Amino acid sequence: MKEQIRCAVLGLGRLGSWHAENLASKVPGAELVYVADPSGNVAEEVARELGVEKWTKNPNDVFQEADIDAVIIATPTSTHGDMIKKAIAAGKHIFVEKPITQDLSEANEIVQLIENSDVFCQVGFMRRYDPAYAEAKKRILAGDIGKPIYFKGVSRDPVAPSPEYVKNSGGMFLDMSIHDYDIARFLMDSEVKSIVANGSVLVNPFMKEFNDVDQAITYLTFESGAAGDIEGSRNAHYGYDIRGEVIGTEGTILIGSVKNHDIKVLTKKGSTHDIVPDFPTRFKDAYVIEMIDFIDSLRKNRTPKVTEIDGKAALEIALKAKESFETGQMVHLDTHEKASVL
Amino acid sequence: MKEQIRCAVLGLGRLGSWHAENLASKVPGAELVYVADPSGNVAEEVARELGVEKWTKNPNDVFQEADIDAVIIATPTSTHGDMIKKAIAAGKHIFVEKPITQDLSEANEIVQLIENSDVFCQVGFMRRYDPAYAEAKKRILAGDIGKPIYFKGVSRDPVAPSPEYVKNSGGMFLDMSIHDYDIARFLMDSEVKSIVANGSVLVNPFMKEFNDVDQAITYLTFESGAAGDIEGSRNAHYGYDIRGEVIGTEGTILIGSVKNHDIKVLTKKGSTHDIVPDFPTRFKDAYVIEMIDFIDSLRKNRTPKVTEIDGKAALEIALKAKESFETGQMVHLDTHEKASVL
Amino acid sequence: MKEQIRCAVLGLGRLGSWHAENLASKVPGAELVYVADPSGNVAEEVARELGVEKWTKNPNDVFQEADIDAVIIATPTSTHGDMIKKAIAAGKHIFVEKPITQDLSEANEIVQLIENSDVFCQVGFMRRYDPAYAEAKKRILAGDIGKPIYFKGVSRDPVAPSPEYVKNSGGMFLDMSIHDYDIARFLMDSEVKSIVANGSVLVNPFMKEFNDVDQAITYLTFESGAAGDIEGSRNAHYGYDIRGEVIGTEGTILIGSVKNHDIKVLTKKGSTHDIVPDFPTRFKDAYVIEMIDFIDSLRKNRTPKVTEIDGKAALEIALKAKESFETGQMVHLDTHEKASVL
Amino acid sequence: MKEQIRCAVLGLGRLGSWHAENLASKVPGAELVYVADPSGNVAEEVARELGVEKWTKNPNDVFQEADIDAVIIATPTSTHGDMIKKAIAAGKHIFVEKPITQDLSEANEIVQLIENSDVFCQVGFMRRYDPAYAEAKKRILAGDIGKPIYFKGVSRDPVAPSPEYVKNSGGMFLDMSIHDYDIARFLMDSEVKSIVANGSVLVNPFMKEFNDVDQAITYLTFESGAAGDIEGSRNAHYGYDIRGEVIGTEGTILIGSVKNHDIKVLTKKGSTHDIVPDFPTRFKDAYVIEMIDFIDSLRKNRTPKVTEIDGKAALEIALKAKESFETGQMVHLDTHEKASVL
Repeated sequence: MKEQIRCAVLGLGRLGSWHAENLASKVPGAELVYVADPSGNVAEEVARELGVEKWTKNPNDVFQEADIDAVIIATPTSTHGDMIKKAIAAGKHIFVEKPITQDLSEANEIVQLIENSDVFCQVGFMRRYDPAYAEAKKRILAGDIGKPIYFKGVSRDPVAPSPEYVKNSGGMFLDMSIHDYDIARFLMDSEVKSIVANGSVLVNPFMKEFNDVDQAITYLTFESGAAGDIEGSRNAHYGYDIRGEVIGTEGTILIGSVKNHDIKVLTKKGSTHDIVPDFPTRFKDAYVIEMIDFIDSLRKNRTPKVTEIDGKAALEIALKAKESFETGQMVHLDTHEKASVL
Repeated sequence: MKEQIRCAVLGLGRLGSWHAENLASKVPGAELVYVADPSGNVAEEVARELGVEKWTKNPNDVFQEADIDAVIIATPTSTHGDMIKKAIAAGKHIFVEKPITQDLSEANEIVQLIENSDVFCQVGFMRRYDPAYAEAKKRILAGDIGKPIYFKGVSRDPVAPSPEYVKNSGGMFLDMSIHDYDIARFLMDSEVKSIVANGSVLVNPFMKEFNDVDQAITYLTFESGAAGDIEGSRNAHYGYDIRGEVIGTEGTILIGSVKNHDIKVLTKKGSTHDIVPDFPTRFKDAYVIEMIDFIDSLRKNRTPKVTEIDGKAALEIALKAKESFETGQMVHLDTHEKASVL
Repeated sequence: MKEQIRCAVLGLGRLGSWHAENLASKVPGAELVYVADPSGNVAEEVARELGVEKWTKNPNDVFQEADIDAVIIATPTSTHGDMIKKAIAAGKHIFVEKPITQDLSEANEIVQLIENSDVFCQVGFMRRYDPAYAEAKKRILAGDIGKPIYFKGVSRDPVAPSPEYVKNSGGMFLDMSIHDYDIARFLMDSEVKSIVANGSVLVNPFMKEFNDVDQAITYLTFESGAAGDIEGSRNAHYGYDIRGEVIGTEGTILIGSVKNHDIKVLTKKGSTHDIVPDFPTRFKDAYVIEMIDFIDSLRKNRTPKVTEIDGKAALEIALKAKESFETGQMVHLDTHEKASVL
Repeated sequence: MKEQIRCAVLGLGRLGSWHAENLASKVPGAELVYVADPSGNVAEEVARELGVEKWTKNPNDVFQEADIDAVIIATPTSTHGDMIKKAIAAGKHIFVEKPITQDLSEANEIVQLIENSDVFCQVGFMRRYDPAYAEAKKRILAGDIGKPIYFKGVSRDPVAPSPEYVKNSGGMFLDMSIHDYDIARFLMDSEVKSIVANGSVLVNPFMKEFNDVDQAITYLTFESGAAGDIEGSRNAHYGYDIRGEVIGTEGTILIGSVKNHDIKVLTKKGSTHDIVPDFPTRFKDAYVIEMIDFIDSLRKNRTPKVTEIDGKAALEIALKAKESFETGQMVHLDTHEKASVL
């Protein structure tokens, strides 16, 4: 086993900073040696705070550095494809945030390039590492609910993002529901066969400008014969609400709740518990565990558990969902090579 | 106020028997004086058990009886239209199980006939009387969640009905989801504008013969600008599972759980509570309360809270959902006169 | 089986009125024919409202009435003994609210008198008829938690009663914890062997005048070798909170929660559900079911399930708890004849 | 701020190993440089695994080492006093597992010695750092439940320890309930004034040999006028069950549940969730957070939040509870100097 994996984090926005912090203090076998971010003196500050040797405003510098094993790509989505290709060329292992790209042909190209290289690539579908989802997977494999026949997903954000963010986000299906598309493939252990998507603008009129919606439902059928529905929403003004359900022939598993701390306050006004306010709170552990698993893969020279093929599959579902929403028609997916859904 | 309402129950299947029993012992101001059922000696036995004066094998006998104020129609759905029309002609008030008919033009005819008569008609959407749904309505009206923007409904049966039942049921949308269509109109306080329905046969191949499904999703938009989705299922092998949710601009209300008794058993195998096994268990109180309210309406000479217009509106949504499922197209509803959704 | 049991209700305070209403409309085989209450024109009004034939301001009138089968005694506790003895003398069956009396020797006398008579007596420990407690008993008998080894009870009132009430109530142990003493005997299926009671005045200084407390804990040991603790409180300003727990050698059963309606409201302030406000709300069903069972016993000429012997046993525990609280010493109970704890 | 705190862990049993592991990889500013354990080659193995520079079989070696800032004492309880005094003499800061000692006069001596020295001492009452208890404290301080008037604690182990363990454990009150005594002082923000303790041997007859019990209840009164009860048990064969409740004048806070993962499995047998199996699972986060806070205290040269004075106060309550159990009498505590209960 390789002792230490020398890592660089590219992009130090919210997600990039967490990955940097986790790599610096919570991931056995990881050594964070380089951080990059073009804005102001962000990279310098993060480097100082976390005791990182090197920093740069130009992410490209990192690829020149011989002594780096892996890059964590947390730059804007539009640059993912470019960064990944440079990493492959430089022989660096890759952790990339979702979506892997916003374009299917580029995703295909990347899959090909990685196949012909020696680098491993993990995509940031951290939900698979969330203890509740992971336990659900375990229970399904143990046969606790029989054969999975229906998936039900809910992902709700507490506030709508800014028009600027929405403009570049790829829209509800690509930005939000993609997490559910991935976890649905994972839990149902089957590829998606057809997609119908519907949605509405319920609260945020500006979304219409970008042909986006603030509440959507995707109906999926799977090659296994199963089906499912996935709700995405920007309108959960009460908190960050992520729920999953897998119905099987013998029972059902409900995953997730909005309860934050394990306390309950009873007053004359009723019984209250606090609510998960946002995704960092909800998936704090998952972000650490996914990074531990990524580094563990590299140390053991094994393929990561969520690869570029998963990244491409979820992207394809998201793009077809968007197409279905725009055309009002069901869209069928070609049967494709089985990805690593386990 | 009228002292006593003299009632007859037509059809003594499962639902009819409960209505008879409730009228006999739990509904103030009701007097059950006649029961009718064509099969064997069912009517005679029920009459004896409940101490009812008169019984008959021919429901038509009841309409001849001058001294009856109201009929409870719990006969097969295919006979609803005929029974209702006879009741109107005989000047009897009507309580009819859902759906009011299976045919939209007959529903229109009935609405017209009732309008031109002096009889009142209540439709058996008992879910409105369930204490949890009723409390949710109260909370919405109190403004606890702001303006309602999304409805989410789940109705799952623990077992698929027999092929014979499915054949005559009108299918998933008309037989099951119709309860959610009604409660959605009620809670959202708005009429449905467009419908997209999808569904699959996941477990019961025989359903394909009848062009029916065992799991379906309906996407609704409302005239208020709100939207919603409704899942219907015959595959909840764990129990009878009815859930509702109303998302508003300030919060959300979750209605229903599968918990039956208010106990929890903890053993090495985990924490267990028992599950609602079927709809009589889940809606036991609602069936009593709806009948109390029906009789109360008649005693006070006021229009019931769920009328033939609600019956027609839900039927129309169900029929259009079926059409959408069959054509793969969104179906739009004509704007119609505002019904009594409150 | 006797067709109809002709009943009289003595005392039309809160509890008496409910019993009257339940007997009038919800209890098969019961006929409410007489109501009695000395205050104002209460009896007359209740009689009119419920359509009862006869009413009187003098409860003693009822015992003269030959055509009455059973009396429901809901008069002040201090009169229970007298009423019971008159009922026995008049050959009327008895339903009496708890406590059966406030005095152990009178309780013994009553037990003796009933044994030598033909009347049945049921004591109003309605908690045994609550669906949650009843289900717990069923689970224990089914062996779901092995052998019961510890009972934990909580009974909390939302507000302290008035000084006047406290003065005549017999105090925390006799007025409140007695319900837990009875349900503990019932669920543990064993008699109490020793008692230690402690308590404090935490919020209501006036209780000190009456040597009473507003929060108390009783530690019990049982003849079976089991033990238990029971908390009583007047300080649950958030609602009416009744919980039970039976720990067995293989698991535990938790009974009760403060959740009222089966809904949950999520807003920015957290997740809220409404709380059971008072005991009529919490035990509404139990009051009906106990009365149905009482009348059923009389119709079938069988001994009721909660008799005067249970009434005496719970009273004895309560009195000894009070003694322990006052002396600071453990009090032992004589082994007594096994009562009908099942 | 001091950059790095150089630490040694003394005793590498279960708790010591976790502390070592946490210090090595999860505590910012901590450097684990020395581990000590007398058994076999445990110290050597732990040192190798965690990359620690030095190891020894003789804990006393550590005190000779000039370049160590703090010692974590996780040796057997009987050695705590000796280790603490040596650490004080050597000028090392101290983290010591509970109980601080088993003897009150030694605890007093230690408190005195620390007062006259420059070392800080933190006691391992990790429950204060558990996110649920910490949130409860926050809510109480925020006034969410008014003034605290009653504390209710439950601590139940899933299996009884071995006779050997019980023999040296100090018994239920000193070994288990001491955690509740500390958290009660913390949450109620008041010192204990009087104690009554009762208990029984319900399942494990061998406990009688050691004058110990397997289920106990302690009744506490506080100087603030509040009261409370604390149940300790070795008989929770269903899992590890830790619950707390603080009743205030305006509401109550319930802390803790036995739910482990945030999933629910529904099958025909009911609804199930998995249960917290043991204390490492339940308090995993708390152990990390307490160590982070200890190191943070040392870096900032501030007194830790749970000191030797808290250690002594909880010990005193435990010893008096044992005395009360043995004598059957209430025991009063002298009013003592206010400790750092916040």
